[in-house]
Amino acid sequence: MHLLIIGAAGMIGRKLVGAISRTGKLGSHTVTKLTLSDAIKPEAPAVFPGAVTRLALDISDPRSAQQMLAELPDVIVHLASIVSGEAEQDFDKGYRINLDGTRYLFDAVRQLSPVHDYCPRLVFASSIAVFGAPMPDAIGDTFLAAPMTSYGTQKAICELLLQDYTRRGFFDGMALRLPTICIRPGLPNKAASGFFSGILREPLAGKSAILPVADTVSHWHASPRAAVGFLTHAATMDTGPVGHRRALTMPGVQATVAEQIEALRAIAGDKAVALIRHEPDPEIIRIVSNWPRGFAANRALELGFRAENSFDEIIRIHIEDEMGGEL
Amino acid sequence: MHLLIIGAAGMIGRKLVGAISRTGKLGSHTVTKLTLSDAIKPEAPAVFPGAVTRLALDISDPRSAQQMLAELPDVIVHLASIVSGEAEQDFDKGYRINLDGTRYLFDAVRQLSPVHDYCPRLVFASSIAVFGAPMPDAIGDTFLAAPMTSYGTQKAICELLLQDYTRRGFFDGMALRLPTICIRPGLPNKAASGFFSGILREPLAGKSAILPVADTVSHWHASPRAAVGFLTHAATMDTGPVGHRRALTMPGVQATVAEQIEALRAIAGDKAVALIRHEPDPEIIRIVSNWPRGFAANRALELGFRAENSFDEIIRIHIEDEMGGEL
Repeated sequence: MHLLIIGAAGMIGRKLVGAISRTGKLGSHTVTKLTLSDAIKPEAPAVFPGAVTRLALDISDPRSAQQMLAELPDVIVHLASIVSGEAEQDFDKGYRINLDGTRYLFDAVRQLSPVHDYCPRLVFASSIAVFGAPMPDAIGDTFLAAPMTSYGTQKAICELLLQDYTRRGFFDGMALRLPTICIRPGLPNKAASGFFSGILREPLAGKSAILPVADTVSHWHASPRAAVGFLTHAATMDTGPVGHRRALTMPGVQATVAEQIEALRAIAGDKAVALIRHEPDPEIIRIVSNWPRGFAANRALELGFRAENSFDEIIRIHIEDEMGGEL
Repeated sequence: MHLLIIGAAGMIGRKLVGAISRTGKLGSHTVTKLTLSDAIKPEAPAVFPGAVTRLALDISDPRSAQQMLAELPDVIVHLASIVSGEAEQDFDKGYRINLDGTRYLFDAVRQLSPVHDYCPRLVFASSIAVFGAPMPDAIGDTFLAAPMTSYGTQKAICELLLQDYTRRGFFDGMALRLPTICIRPGLPNKAASGFFSGILREPLAGKSAILPVADTVSHWHASPRAAVGFLTHAATMDTGPVGHRRALTMPGVQATVAEQIEALRAIAGDKAVALIRHEPDPEIIRIVSNWPRGFAANRALELGFRAENSFDEIIRIHIEDEMGGEL
């Protein structure tokens, strides 16, 4: 199988490449070729035995998609986008990269479709940012997309495009609304959601962290490892039972910030918790107040997608995958 | 008030121009200038006392929007699109006109916004085609948009754009999901929904009509007069109470085909009903099976939008507005 990963240099992209290179497989399928693309040239996997092509491409250039698709990959995983904070700050850039870039990709696949009898699986990373207030405590699978950010709008539009292109037979698309990924490894990024990871990751490493919202805030989380599992499942599953609605909210763990902190305390003790400083940030409070608190992700569960069962599990995965298994 | 109507040569556009030219008003606002645009040059209103500019423009040309907006209209009513059958047959044309054309308009307003402190009311004609099966008998205001046509996809995407551009303050947008308009005046057309009007309009004129589906089919209807009322209200209402969700399903009359036929019988007698011939068409049956059967359009009703209360009323309006008040 030839797999193209767009956004391969990002956090999830690198995790996915890592998982594939360790096993040589995507699910039960042997991966013989990897094409890795991003705005910067992605790192080569350390141990992967198959062929690897690495591309540094701007997806907002319509020619980029043709280059990425030159060898007709069997599966395309599209993770590339600018984050919500940046899409909010730079309106044009957000639409150019998150919407136009995705549409160029979809259209490039469509152009190849009749010529080569080409119909790849295409997995698109959407987001729970497609939802906006007011929302029920547990958002079901038939609740409207009413984004309150330009980023969420761009993701919701790409979901609609993906479903129409799939219906028309241009590709076999799956759009996964990823929960907030927690615990994000590495340095903080511009996302307003950064603190959900920061208040755990930094204290686990003995560093201080800022909590900009009240600890009553509830949200929907899954680990990077779960995200890799979602993408792998979507890339390899039988899509027959999915039907027409190809945008699925992924399962996750619903937790308040207080519950996150108690999970941290249970695993790393009071000393870790004492490193969290509460510094309310009115702008982040405002943004987060419009975010989903939780979901009933029944369709994804029925279709075999699996996340963690508790925040303890999310923290233990971070310790295993990012800290060599030890605090 | 300067009003720009895009798609002014279409059926609803002509009705709206007619209503304005008769009174010189849009709701309670005096219209001093009309700019009428369409792919073909719209007819001039017969009696309107203000200034009229008529434009023949292709909205899929990005320069068209700048021409239409040259005099900074206070209110923009955007009705222009190709219909669902054509958007399904010609994929590129559908996206070019129904999506790109609308986005060019929105972006042209956005470019003018900071320069001229410009923030017009922008009313966009969306459609109940944004919904797709499976659906409940009465679709509520928080039900997901899951279109099953490219036309419905394009309308749903434009709704999302309109809401984001409104949130960002580029214009003050309202997207109205119009019911199927019944009774459409004029000649029978090839639209899959054409029979809903045809089985009434033709017998009322003493002509035969074909019913291609079972008379148990239920659907959601409003008269052309109601549609003009929706647009007028959206163009002039206080949008403060609307909040962030600017795509509203318009009220209508839910009726089965059998109920439509009984209303025809009550008004025009058995002789009219006898002109309807049942000739099942498998393709139309398939298309219509994925259409909404009815709505609970509570938000629109709360915000003051009004449709007819019965199918009798819909037929009587047709007789008044299209047949000089007499059978």
